[in-house]
Amino acid sequence: MNPNNNHLVIMAGGVGSRFWPVSTVQRPKQFLDIMGCGKSMLQLTLERFGDIVPIENVWVVTGASFADMVREQLPEVPAENILLEPCGRGTAPCICYVSWKIKMRNPRANVIVTPADHNVKDEETFRLSIRETVNFASETDAIVTLGMKATYPATGYGYIRADLRYPALRQRNIFRVDSFREKPDEETARGYIRQNNYYWNAGIFVWNVSTIVNAFRVYSREISAIFESLVSVYDTPQEQERINEIFPTCPKISVDYAIMEHAEEVFVYPVDFGWSDVGTWGSLHEQLPKDAHGNAVVGNDVHVVESENCIVHTTTCKSVVVQGLDGFIVVEKDGNLLIAKMTEEQRIESFH
Amino acid sequence: MNPNNNHLVIMAGGVGSRFWPVSTVQRPKQFLDIMGCGKSMLQLTLERFGDIVPIENVWVVTGASFADMVREQLPEVPAENILLEPCGRGTAPCICYVSWKIKMRNPRANVIVTPADHNVKDEETFRLSIRETVNFASETDAIVTLGMKATYPATGYGYIRADLRYPALRQRNIFRVDSFREKPDEETARGYIRQNNYYWNAGIFVWNVSTIVNAFRVYSREISAIFESLVSVYDTPQEQERINEIFPTCPKISVDYAIMEHAEEVFVYPVDFGWSDVGTWGSLHEQLPKDAHGNAVVGNDVHVVESENCIVHTTTCKSVVVQGLDGFIVVEKDGNLLIAKMTEEQRIESFH
Repeated sequence: MNPNNNHLVIMAGGVGSRFWPVSTVQRPKQFLDIMGCGKSMLQLTLERFGDIVPIENVWVVTGASFADMVREQLPEVPAENILLEPCGRGTAPCICYVSWKIKMRNPRANVIVTPADHNVKDEETFRLSIRETVNFASETDAIVTLGMKATYPATGYGYIRADLRYPALRQRNIFRVDSFREKPDEETARGYIRQNNYYWNAGIFVWNVSTIVNAFRVYSREISAIFESLVSVYDTPQEQERINEIFPTCPKISVDYAIMEHAEEVFVYPVDFGWSDVGTWGSLHEQLPKDAHGNAVVGNDVHVVESENCIVHTTTCKSVVVQGLDGFIVVEKDGNLLIAKMTEEQRIESFH
Repeated sequence: MNPNNNHLVIMAGGVGSRFWPVSTVQRPKQFLDIMGCGKSMLQLTLERFGDIVPIENVWVVTGASFADMVREQLPEVPAENILLEPCGRGTAPCICYVSWKIKMRNPRANVIVTPADHNVKDEETFRLSIRETVNFASETDAIVTLGMKATYPATGYGYIRADLRYPALRQRNIFRVDSFREKPDEETARGYIRQNNYYWNAGIFVWNVSTIVNAFRVYSREISAIFESLVSVYDTPQEQERINEIFPTCPKISVDYAIMEHAEEVFVYPVDFGWSDVGTWGSLHEQLPKDAHGNAVVGNDVHVVESENCIVHTTTCKSVVVQGLDGFIVVEKDGNLLIAKMTEEQRIESFH
């Protein structure tokens, strides 16, 4: 594997609405220091890949209104690698667009696609897994997804069912995907967990650029045709203007629906590195370091007294005292305050 | 009773420390809109007296650093009636000073003394009680205290024990004080409540100015001599300078200790108008209007969901969601946030 062939696509267009009041439409989760470590989730995402990908091969696809934030937070990423969607159309148009851009720069590119707002605890294992997957994808026509070890019957994730009978010929730890399953209800999720061949779909994909461009041609002809038609304007001053015209005409569809569920050579690489999509306050609580009483704290001058299993996440507060709470979310940003039971985290949006 | 003889003294020098994070040394409780009605407790205090006292007879004694706040909040009070203490020496020097000032203006004055940071629910009954008490004090040499009906065994208030056998000659509802009792422990307080002749000492006093000046001469000679010595400088440009020199030399003592506990003609007028010193978040909760679930809310855009018996008091927050709390205090001001069980309100200072 020649690392100069490795390209990384960070999809940073999401609008995290479940993280009110911290995440807003103006500045969604990926641009925030949600882990309280001094870096945004976008910055952590790039950092996580270490030296797997040279910086000139890092691409960020984001909403046009987020362009300045991306440039500010990732100044090392070449400006021409920041692609701006005039509107969100799901992951399929996003990936097709950037795949054509990469293909034009390097037809032998290996591509890793990742969301910008997930967290990984064990980054060393993460990088080992990515390297192995890239090796595999560089030598095959495989579409590879990373399958996260499902540690509890989550209803907030989609699942990948692996066929563990048949490891990939050239890689003993990579298996054919039997099927993709949408977010299940609680009972179904428990059934998945009882079996040992279901993995969380993290939306992290690895392939070589020819494979994915061909897959679009075969399984998503409409989208493929749109971005192939722009080959003559890529890297010209007209590119953004044409994208702004044509992007809204794309069907809104995820790459899972458009490609994964139809393609033949789809594989899953089971991994276990403490992954979370940090989709709710509860999952952030799970990812953050905790004190002896299970409290996770992000913020200045926070005093947690006689409390257990809480997450206290304050951004603008000068000082905070929390006493006598068990299993609560306490979140503040810019004068917006949320106090709610962790068990009710899915209902937060309905409270205000 | 000639209302032009009636004078009101509002003691506004206190520094409420139990109301963190709302009350601060820079702007204590009496200057805050703690009731969430658009008026400070100082403003509510003056308003409560209606037309009992002409505005030119209203006096405010406060700390020098609070002068501007008093002038701003009570612009109708004559500037020369705002007396500034260079330091707090308790209520005895404060009252002796203002009594001499009043005596020089009107030797026949009836004087009502009140703290600036208490609340009264039934203001109509309050005014009736004050009028009756002033009538009595204007015709006698009586020192009269208002005795608040003790509705629960409070340990945060001092008590007045009345001798109910002997009503005052000219007023059937005013009784001789048997003794003053300091803040009791819980068991003692329960004993007080079981009897029917114990009242909370609200620090509201009524007397005529000769009576109190004479009482200081007899029972608190040191303080009396200090303020009598300044008779020639009152209402001259030198007054504040001399006060600044001499005030710190006064013994620090309350009027209860200096006068009440020693004087002969001390009476109590039992009243029941929903009084509270609003000394803690719990007592504020008790005074505020509540929803069907016992929640009291002061603040903008506050949503209280699936919660009971809470007080939510936010000053600078733009929006607040509180879900799933029972019996909690949630308070915010200027980026300082407190969440604590109401039962632990006395320990709040120790939490931060």
